[in-house]
Amino acid sequence: MKADHKQSSTEETLIARYFRPLATDPGAFDLGDDAAILKALGGDIVVTTDAIVEGVHFLPDDPPDTIAQKALRVNLSDLAAKGATPAGFVLTLALRAADDAWLTPFARGLGADASRFDCPLLGGDTVSTPGPAMISITAFGRVKPGKMVLRSGAKAGDRVVVTGTIGDASLGLDILRRGRAAAALAGDAAAREMLVDRYRVPQPRNALVQALRDHAHAAMDVSDGLAGDLAKLCAASGVSAVVDVPSIPMSAAAAAIVAAGAVGIEILVSGGDDYEILCAIPEDSFERFARAAVIAGVAVSSIGTVIAATSAPKFLDAQGRDLNLSRLSYSHF
Amino acid sequence: MKADHKQSSTEETLIARYFRPLATDPGAFDLGDDAAILKALGGDIVVTTDAIVEGVHFLPDDPPDTIAQKALRVNLSDLAAKGATPAGFVLTLALRAADDAWLTPFARGLGADASRFDCPLLGGDTVSTPGPAMISITAFGRVKPGKMVLRSGAKAGDRVVVTGTIGDASLGLDILRRGRAAAALAGDAAAREMLVDRYRVPQPRNALVQALRDHAHAAMDVSDGLAGDLAKLCAASGVSAVVDVPSIPMSAAAAAIVAAGAVGIEILVSGGDDYEILCAIPEDSFERFARAAVIAGVAVSSIGTVIAATSAPKFLDAQGRDLNLSRLSYSHF
Repeated sequence: MKADHKQSSTEETLIARYFRPLATDPGAFDLGDDAAILKALGGDIVVTTDAIVEGVHFLPDDPPDTIAQKALRVNLSDLAAKGATPAGFVLTLALRAADDAWLTPFARGLGADASRFDCPLLGGDTVSTPGPAMISITAFGRVKPGKMVLRSGAKAGDRVVVTGTIGDASLGLDILRRGRAAAALAGDAAAREMLVDRYRVPQPRNALVQALRDHAHAAMDVSDGLAGDLAKLCAASGVSAVVDVPSIPMSAAAAAIVAAGAVGIEILVSGGDDYEILCAIPEDSFERFARAAVIAGVAVSSIGTVIAATSAPKFLDAQGRDLNLSRLSYSHF
Repeated sequence: MKADHKQSSTEETLIARYFRPLATDPGAFDLGDDAAILKALGGDIVVTTDAIVEGVHFLPDDPPDTIAQKALRVNLSDLAAKGATPAGFVLTLALRAADDAWLTPFARGLGADASRFDCPLLGGDTVSTPGPAMISITAFGRVKPGKMVLRSGAKAGDRVVVTGTIGDASLGLDILRRGRAAAALAGDAAAREMLVDRYRVPQPRNALVQALRDHAHAAMDVSDGLAGDLAKLCAASGVSAVVDVPSIPMSAAAAAIVAAGAVGIEILVSGGDDYEILCAIPEDSFERFARAAVIAGVAVSSIGTVIAATSAPKFLDAQGRDLNLSRLSYSHF
């Protein structure tokens, strides 16, 4: 792991104090070399990179432990969607200052998740920046050779399946910004807190990895909104899809907000930061997939069908009307 | 490769236009999936991460192609020092705006080096930032299992060896800042340009990889100044070293600046951004190592000896006096 050489001694102390305890893998050499070693163990290495920027992907006053968790989990979510078992990660941390009061909980959150998901810190770089804080993580996973689950394998007739619930995180961000969702839940602090937590701390579905490997024709994680991400999966697979909007899983809090008319369902469907898994499961193995998901402790919902077409996926309401999804990707409401 | 979902369509166009042509490896899936596949090919994967920040590691008006080259080459330099053959890289690009006039040469420089060093783009993430531009690269290399060259293997009696010349890059930065080096070379535009080029575009010594694998007890790249980096290598190896300062290789331009008394040798020895390789070569294989370096086209210089001690390495001048290296790591002069 590298200290920024413009402030070498401070940063080396920082690495030793906060990050060396997280480098539990022998290939990390206690962060004392210029590089780490990653063993492939006979499989392929799956590589994914996601960065989060202060003011863009997290808020300046978000608790530092949740910022660290989000930085790692958005990458773990990609590994999960690809059917890969976490193997480790490297971290680039760009900060204005080395502030103990921020770094202590940040490293604690990162270490707890590295341990929880068995994904050790292998190395990284710390740099100083006069701008907003940024955390860039490259995470590694292992799959059997040629067995990464792609975006591009969906086939007509497959079920469109999502994990967990959709739209909570975008409502959580709206609450932090005192928007319409906050007003609709003015009397329900627990619901507001749940939604904010869904925004700050994604729940990557790594427990579902084996079921995805065994059954999914295609998968990706939902980070930019269900509608936009389904469009990407369909485009990569050369297919389209029809989604039954009432089948889209919502939390009770989200359902209450929609029922109150505060936020339309189309906002939830195009909101970002869900970090659920969207996948295409062949009809004839859906039951087995669903059973495996139950055993893994991950809720899954069948929300539609892959069809042979090249048009954009349709989202049909209970009356069979197409949802107006003019804003397919995330936008603040 | 991911587009920042806050400006999804623009960024996807950006990725398609500028970066897809660089993703020549089949494991990159044309940047169309959430992750890439890296084949280990029976060896270990060596992983290294280095980020560069505008205003800290490069200057806002540096040519964009050289910024891209520096971002990749500082990582290639680490792979070289570890005896690893480049296998690919992922890129996190944080920019204020998607500016064609900047991105076109940036992508051209990156692509040229990816091709030159056989290190294809595998994936990445583009994010918008209100702050300075930042380029974080994680690069991958391959070595035979257990054969990464470590910092920690130097033994008493080994020769201390460096590649290329030392101190040019820090003089190049000084010239860009119109410092004393610029004044000393006021009449020599070619020398000034050479030094600036050494600052902007490191020359990673990947051609030396096989010689390092075959002969080096320990190696690292010199990025934070020769003195500071030798101290790190010695500390990791539990040894010390004595360096003969007149043996430290200098370019003619650097030698002229030192001879003119404009900048002291101690500044060159503690200046950063050299991106040369520092290694410990056993005495009895030095001749073979030197011959292999000639064949590889990389200049190497024996500058001292590893000794059995735990004190800081000594830098002795022609009179046997210890150089004053109070500022061991990079500082602007």
